[in-house]
Amino acid sequence: MYKCSLERMTDKIKTFSTFGDAGHGGITRYSLSPEAIKAREEFKKRMEAIGAIIEIDDLANMYATLPGTDKDAKRIVMGSHVDSVKNGGNYDGILGVMSAMEVLETVADQNIPHKHPLTAMIWTNEEGSLYPPAMMCSGIVCYDYLPENIRAKFKYEDMMNSKSILDSTKTFGEALEKSGFKGDKKYRINPEKYKYMFETHIEQGPILEDSGNDIGVVDCVLGMFNYRVKFYGQAAHAGTFPMTKRKDAFYAASQALCYIHDEVDKLGVPELVYTTGEVVCHPCVHTVIPDFFDFSIDARHEDPKALEKVLTIVKSCADKEWAGCKCVVEKAWNRDTVYWDKKLVGYVKEAAEEAEIKHKYIHSGAGHDAQFAAYMLPTTMIFVQSKDGLSHCEPEYSTPEHCTEGATVMLNAVLKADAE
Amino acid sequence: MYKCSLERMTDKIKTFSTFGDAGHGGITRYSLSPEAIKAREEFKKRMEAIGAIIEIDDLANMYATLPGTDKDAKRIVMGSHVDSVKNGGNYDGILGVMSAMEVLETVADQNIPHKHPLTAMIWTNEEGSLYPPAMMCSGIVCYDYLPENIRAKFKYEDMMNSKSILDSTKTFGEALEKSGFKGDKKYRINPEKYKYMFETHIEQGPILEDSGNDIGVVDCVLGMFNYRVKFYGQAAHAGTFPMTKRKDAFYAASQALCYIHDEVDKLGVPELVYTTGEVVCHPCVHTVIPDFFDFSIDARHEDPKALEKVLTIVKSCADKEWAGCKCVVEKAWNRDTVYWDKKLVGYVKEAAEEAEIKHKYIHSGAGHDAQFAAYMLPTTMIFVQSKDGLSHCEPEYSTPEHCTEGATVMLNAVLKADAE
Repeated sequence: MYKCSLERMTDKIKTFSTFGDAGHGGITRYSLSPEAIKAREEFKKRMEAIGAIIEIDDLANMYATLPGTDKDAKRIVMGSHVDSVKNGGNYDGILGVMSAMEVLETVADQNIPHKHPLTAMIWTNEEGSLYPPAMMCSGIVCYDYLPENIRAKFKYEDMMNSKSILDSTKTFGEALEKSGFKGDKKYRINPEKYKYMFETHIEQGPILEDSGNDIGVVDCVLGMFNYRVKFYGQAAHAGTFPMTKRKDAFYAASQALCYIHDEVDKLGVPELVYTTGEVVCHPCVHTVIPDFFDFSIDARHEDPKALEKVLTIVKSCADKEWAGCKCVVEKAWNRDTVYWDKKLVGYVKEAAEEAEIKHKYIHSGAGHDAQFAAYMLPTTMIFVQSKDGLSHCEPEYSTPEHCTEGATVMLNAVLKADAE
Repeated sequence: MYKCSLERMTDKIKTFSTFGDAGHGGITRYSLSPEAIKAREEFKKRMEAIGAIIEIDDLANMYATLPGTDKDAKRIVMGSHVDSVKNGGNYDGILGVMSAMEVLETVADQNIPHKHPLTAMIWTNEEGSLYPPAMMCSGIVCYDYLPENIRAKFKYEDMMNSKSILDSTKTFGEALEKSGFKGDKKYRINPEKYKYMFETHIEQGPILEDSGNDIGVVDCVLGMFNYRVKFYGQAAHAGTFPMTKRKDAFYAASQALCYIHDEVDKLGVPELVYTTGEVVCHPCVHTVIPDFFDFSIDARHEDPKALEKVLTIVKSCADKEWAGCKCVVEKAWNRDTVYWDKKLVGYVKEAAEEAEIKHKYIHSGAGHDAQFAAYMLPTTMIFVQSKDGLSHCEPEYSTPEHCTEGATVMLNAVLKADAE
């Protein structure tokens, strides 16, 4: 059993937190931005320092590889992303990259024997914060392996034309060309050259903390659906239009949202989560009755039957009139639960046990690049405790100790896979 | 009893509807925009054609005056505004300007004798759509006469620095300088030179149509309050944060909005209107639980006691926790009911009766420049039936016949005032 270095991990956390530092505890580090480039350069510098060979594919995905003793062996890859959401935290994504680096650094430092080449990887544009969609480059790389309903969202040409949400004259393809990090397609991760994939990530939820565990042995990424619930009313002047004749789309949406909560609560499905995070209100003027209101609903659960029950309630909104408004329910997308490779999950659990790190099985509610990789390679994930369960916000935090434990578990799980 | 010309009014409606035509029935004509300049030029051209003298004050308010037989008599002024909301209709504001023009044209055409000079007027930036606030220039002109709580919003320097909502580097003051319509402060409407003010406007509500009346004899502008109801929750990831621990600000706001409707409905206050038209949702991302949601509430009624009851309900939201979120209720502004000059209201009623135009007393739910003028001069308003009560939207419509009737009533009411 080997251990990673708390000191080295702490230094990495400190260093990477400066790239895109927003000045109040968190970062904004859009993919391929100057801040993200600094993170990539730091990755390159540190990996070259331990003798790793750097490769970059045509999507700017970066690979740093330490050769193994068996020249014919496929690579075992670990990685995540360096980009963040706007005003995000210092751990989402980057912890998986730092953990992969830490594993390679520990292997190099302690001269740990291994047959397979070990690769630390950066996926480009996981968040999709500036150039949607999320998990763009794992979607492109794994395109041929993905189910058809997911694949349709990741056509290469469409992705290259993805417009910046800040400046619609700029595209992801142009940012890629200008980044200086566009390499060769031949370096793309693929099953001929790679054997297994591991991704370490913060939990982004409070389950580990609340149950007194440091590390999560992740067994799956939850299935989900994402719908839009739209309400069509009639705009009129706030001061002149009688209440009895109004068709107020915001009031309609509020009634429907309360109805959805009431009905879904009645189902009593354990571990279900659903979120209505994005709204559109038109015309959104204080003197005008809203004629349109729209909210997203994102629901996640391991069991597709549980999701189906929730969806039935959401869809039933369209059968009613709300505050005089018509309601339309539209599907945005959905995905099935993705289970991690059972053998690799077993290695992670054994590694945690042997290192005497408190751990538990856990589902991933969030999506990760690893879930696309899982269609191509045997894959698994390791979660690190998140303070207060907060993520995608500046207070996001995991202790250096927990981060190092995550890397230690990954290192030993990787060595078990290497020793097969 | 004199009558205005249906043909001439129809021609004006057709012509002015081209200035800012948005291509689907309505207009976007921001104050001092190229489209609004065209409307001002058309006003100038048509008024000069009947021998009116044009004056422009330092706020670009325009005055076209036909002299009367008494050299020492003060002016009687009629007017409204030529600017619109975004994707507004062809009647709000501009009908009051066209009606004033029509009165002067009828007087000129039929050689109607009058002692007092008669003035048709354009108020600058009534809507405040591009440069807030609404009723900006009547607020500045009437500054010294306004109640202190209203006056505070219309300081000259603040108004000149009002930023464009489309481009925060541009201010109203700069737009005014560049417009070519910045005149001399000495021409500002004032009680030394002006005797009475009339404003014709579309009703912007369905009361006249529903009661089978063409014209509204307006007796007051309703008192109102405008508050913001704010909810503070906790952002977290949509897929990973358990439902029982969530503090969802959008769900909180929806619950509170339903509560407000339920409680205010119980009050059963006739003729009360209240509107929650503007919302802010943060961060407004489908994968993040909203940590902030905010809605405006605008309530209007003649009786301050009725408004007080509604406000008590709105304020009580802050005493509760909604979906785990804290609620804060903040006052934006309020105003008391403004009653029109009883004598002038009487002239309007007599004029409608004598012309055998179907009419009824009505309150104005919307604010108008005339309500600020009313603090300075005896003032009143005339309403014209709105189809389906729609306004501040492209389907806004009043028939040419009703528009002409409005001008006819204003003409004869003005002549009664002139004959005193």
